[in-house]
Amino acid sequence: MKLTILIHCPDQSGIIHSTTGFITNIGGNVIYLDQHVDKQAEVFFMRLECEFLATLDLPTVKNDFEHKVAKVYQMEWSVFTDAEKPRMALFVSKYNHCLYDLLSRYQSGELLVDIPFILSNHKDLEYIGKQFNIPYYHVPVTKESKEAAEDEQLSFLEEHNVDFIVLARYMQIVSPKIIDKFPNRIINIHHSFLPAFAGAKPYHAAFERGVKIIGATSHYVTEELDAGPIIEQDVATVSHTHSVKDFIAKGRDLEKIVLARAVKLHLSRKTMVYNNKTVIFS
Amino acid sequence: MKLTILIHCPDQSGIIHSTTGFITNIGGNVIYLDQHVDKQAEVFFMRLECEFLATLDLPTVKNDFEHKVAKVYQMEWSVFTDAEKPRMALFVSKYNHCLYDLLSRYQSGELLVDIPFILSNHKDLEYIGKQFNIPYYHVPVTKESKEAAEDEQLSFLEEHNVDFIVLARYMQIVSPKIIDKFPNRIINIHHSFLPAFAGAKPYHAAFERGVKIIGATSHYVTEELDAGPIIEQDVATVSHTHSVKDFIAKGRDLEKIVLARAVKLHLSRKTMVYNNKTVIFS
Amino acid sequence: MKLTILIHCPDQSGIIHSTTGFITNIGGNVIYLDQHVDKQAEVFFMRLECEFLATLDLPTVKNDFEHKVAKVYQMEWSVFTDAEKPRMALFVSKYNHCLYDLLSRYQSGELLVDIPFILSNHKDLEYIGKQFNIPYYHVPVTKESKEAAEDEQLSFLEEHNVDFIVLARYMQIVSPKIIDKFPNRIINIHHSFLPAFAGAKPYHAAFERGVKIIGATSHYVTEELDAGPIIEQDVATVSHTHSVKDFIAKGRDLEKIVLARAVKLHLSRKTMVYNNKTVIFS
Amino acid sequence: MKLTILIHCPDQSGIIHSTTGFITNIGGNVIYLDQHVDKQAEVFFMRLECEFLATLDLPTVKNDFEHKVAKVYQMEWSVFTDAEKPRMALFVSKYNHCLYDLLSRYQSGELLVDIPFILSNHKDLEYIGKQFNIPYYHVPVTKESKEAAEDEQLSFLEEHNVDFIVLARYMQIVSPKIIDKFPNRIINIHHSFLPAFAGAKPYHAAFERGVKIIGATSHYVTEELDAGPIIEQDVATVSHTHSVKDFIAKGRDLEKIVLARAVKLHLSRKTMVYNNKTVIFS
Repeated sequence: MKLTILIHCPDQSGIIHSTTGFITNIGGNVIYLDQHVDKQAEVFFMRLECEFLATLDLPTVKNDFEHKVAKVYQMEWSVFTDAEKPRMALFVSKYNHCLYDLLSRYQSGELLVDIPFILSNHKDLEYIGKQFNIPYYHVPVTKESKEAAEDEQLSFLEEHNVDFIVLARYMQIVSPKIIDKFPNRIINIHHSFLPAFAGAKPYHAAFERGVKIIGATSHYVTEELDAGPIIEQDVATVSHTHSVKDFIAKGRDLEKIVLARAVKLHLSRKTMVYNNKTVIFS
Repeated sequence: MKLTILIHCPDQSGIIHSTTGFITNIGGNVIYLDQHVDKQAEVFFMRLECEFLATLDLPTVKNDFEHKVAKVYQMEWSVFTDAEKPRMALFVSKYNHCLYDLLSRYQSGELLVDIPFILSNHKDLEYIGKQFNIPYYHVPVTKESKEAAEDEQLSFLEEHNVDFIVLARYMQIVSPKIIDKFPNRIINIHHSFLPAFAGAKPYHAAFERGVKIIGATSHYVTEELDAGPIIEQDVATVSHTHSVKDFIAKGRDLEKIVLARAVKLHLSRKTMVYNNKTVIFS
Repeated sequence: MKLTILIHCPDQSGIIHSTTGFITNIGGNVIYLDQHVDKQAEVFFMRLECEFLATLDLPTVKNDFEHKVAKVYQMEWSVFTDAEKPRMALFVSKYNHCLYDLLSRYQSGELLVDIPFILSNHKDLEYIGKQFNIPYYHVPVTKESKEAAEDEQLSFLEEHNVDFIVLARYMQIVSPKIIDKFPNRIINIHHSFLPAFAGAKPYHAAFERGVKIIGATSHYVTEELDAGPIIEQDVATVSHTHSVKDFIAKGRDLEKIVLARAVKLHLSRKTMVYNNKTVIFS
Repeated sequence: MKLTILIHCPDQSGIIHSTTGFITNIGGNVIYLDQHVDKQAEVFFMRLECEFLATLDLPTVKNDFEHKVAKVYQMEWSVFTDAEKPRMALFVSKYNHCLYDLLSRYQSGELLVDIPFILSNHKDLEYIGKQFNIPYYHVPVTKESKEAAEDEQLSFLEEHNVDFIVLARYMQIVSPKIIDKFPNRIINIHHSFLPAFAGAKPYHAAFERGVKIIGATSHYVTEELDAGPIIEQDVATVSHTHSVKDFIAKGRDLEKIVLARAVKLHLSRKTMVYNNKTVIFS
């Protein structure tokens, strides 16, 4: 059996020793330990992977850890087993590159998730749902229907026990109602090197400014648009020979790769969020 | 004899044919031709390198070209010979990495320039002027003395027939009085991936935002701060393990390399400016 | 009507002038001209895109160009119209990432080709052919059947008038018989930064050597294994934390992006081959 | 007081717990812990930074750690204080870019080392020694004088208590006699993306092969030429427009940056060597 434990708490002496001692005592072996101290904020972060030969009584272990270790150090912590696959909902609009990329990774076993459904405000990509045999829910969004649409989205998310949402070029702003239920569990891909060119039409803005490098940014969604904690970024060089259309084409490759990396980091529990920033144990 | 010709004009048919015909007729051989059309702006750009076995009477050639070719196509154009080294003034403040980098390239013959002087608002780097045997002018700048200081700077620039200025981490805003005399001939290095984090303390702002990539940008100086035509940019990855101090250290390497590349592009006449953007024939 | 012309010939004076003159004379407008001189080999390369308002009698134009221009300069040249889509055959084995990537680009109109068939020595990816509604030919290859298999491959290629072949992680060596019929028209993706780690199991070899960067290389196939003209390369950083399996997963993303870039360069006639090297007018 | 401890040993349960327990017991606080397990080789690696408020009796602490912890787990380990600056010798030949780069970092306090001398087989860079006020030893090397030269080099190294050697484009093969005395303490910069283009003239070989990316590699020197454990690598894109001379110019920037990074990693004790590979705790 394998556990992944994520911990953060005020920085202080003895945390690693106590935590690894607890694991050793219950028969575990630490196979990976990553640790970070944010010296400005004086916060300690740790990620542990541990293996156990015997099967654990997980509720008892969690209760013990809470009382014997976590309380002492005022830890916020969570533990994940490899027993169940996380359930990932995909939100899309009209662009297919990120959707195709994630589904082909899923198909080849690179992403260990279940995908209960694809949801879109447009019908355009329904054929991809069919190609991959995944339910495709069409929930149109207009100014008038926005609230009803969100309620419908929420009911789909709840009905299917969705763990996290990936906005694979979903071109609508997600409402606080949904964000509140999925804190640090909605992953967006923005088609610029944030914080440059937040908002709409970033490739046009980048072209206008005459930049020599474009980028893409994957981040957790918060209420402030394009301002959530950044998970992953990458860039590509451009030149005067490239038109806006070329920027967009180059950008597609960035977007799909950066989003996929962010999804994989999230899935392997390698991301922790603090002060609107991420710690990425990669 | 070698000439480099830079041309831009409204896009129209026959420009390349007419220009190369002119060169062939006066006994030249085009050894490199780079051309670009900005389709949005409908502007044509061209850079030619030509070799001539015989010595040219340059004033006559220029006059002929103006009347036989340039006028026909409403060209703005300039021509450079390899006969004279451009004269480059270096403005610095307290950081030495860009200065050292440029001077070591100069020393090894990588930069074919004359450096008549280093100018600084501080005395800190005077020792480097001594190491490389280059005059170091100390022109302090305070709120009160700013205008007088600019006049002093201008008189140094004029006295030494300076062709272009490199701000090698010069931490003062250059006034329009100087910019007007050196249009597209003042090269700055900004320590961020512009347009993100324009203005002061970009590394601190980048750290605060939690970006995963930092950058540096070299651009021609215009009146609007950090908004001039971008010549060159590059980036480096960072992570949660890096402090602001680490950002600054990583950034130093970016800054010096990016600035040096921009200076080399400018020196080899590979930059053209239009609509606050650059065409870089690299 | 639009033509793309590729030319190479011994370097000499007047080539650009004569060629652009010819185009102007028949009513064309040069909208892009890229030119390169290999000074070691003394060879001149040029790529022109020209637009014509009227429809051309292409055979006559070609005949005229051959006699009035090409012969004079001993040019090897070819001309392409945008009238017909090139026909691209896809060869695969068991890995699906490159295939999925190319097909999703094809599906969204990013690749302007026809794909008459997918061919594989294994049945594993037949389902992808079905997903995208493209014929999938299974041609098993064993030591004994290799020659017969090649004949079968050739007959498929001929029957479908294939213009070029993409080896999208096809794990068999292509025989000279096929290479000879498709000179510089078979594009392979090799999963290393060539010439490092040519041959089998490059990720294992890279891991063993302890490199800090891995790569992928797309090249035209020649008789010497992994030694053909390189079209495109890219790299990704790795560290001691990555296992061979991690190298392979990171590499997949490199492979598919690098191969797609090479295919797009080939399709837009931006590649020229000379002395086992490429000139890439990107 | 601050200690940095490097440990490797057979992988087994309890190592982290025991080690952190020892540190806590003697009044220390672990401020950074990096750990890695090579699962193929079944070897555990750890790097700890610890702070102590009180002054330690280091010999006693080391003796205790050896008997109470290290022996139990069959550790090979070393400990470094921040009390003394390491002594770095610089070996150069005729190229000045790496030397200038390292010395300008040294001058600005970026490299916390002492540089007792520069040693060269040529007189060319003596002026740089003078610029930076560092002794420059000229030890010519010919076939006949090679052994005597090595003895002279060794006597300089010993006389000045040199801790490690940096070959800043030193164009002679270092003999086993010297390597044996400085195991994993001689840092070389090779001007290619190893293992591609090992040996002489890598830029010429890269040009000949038509690669689209060039690189530089910093590694510890072992007896097999260019085959030692790699510390750091980086790359830059090139194209058909670049001559061998351009490769060399671009490469200079790579070489100096990559070498400087490797030196900084070595200085901060972030490198461990095992099985001819490095673990880099960056």
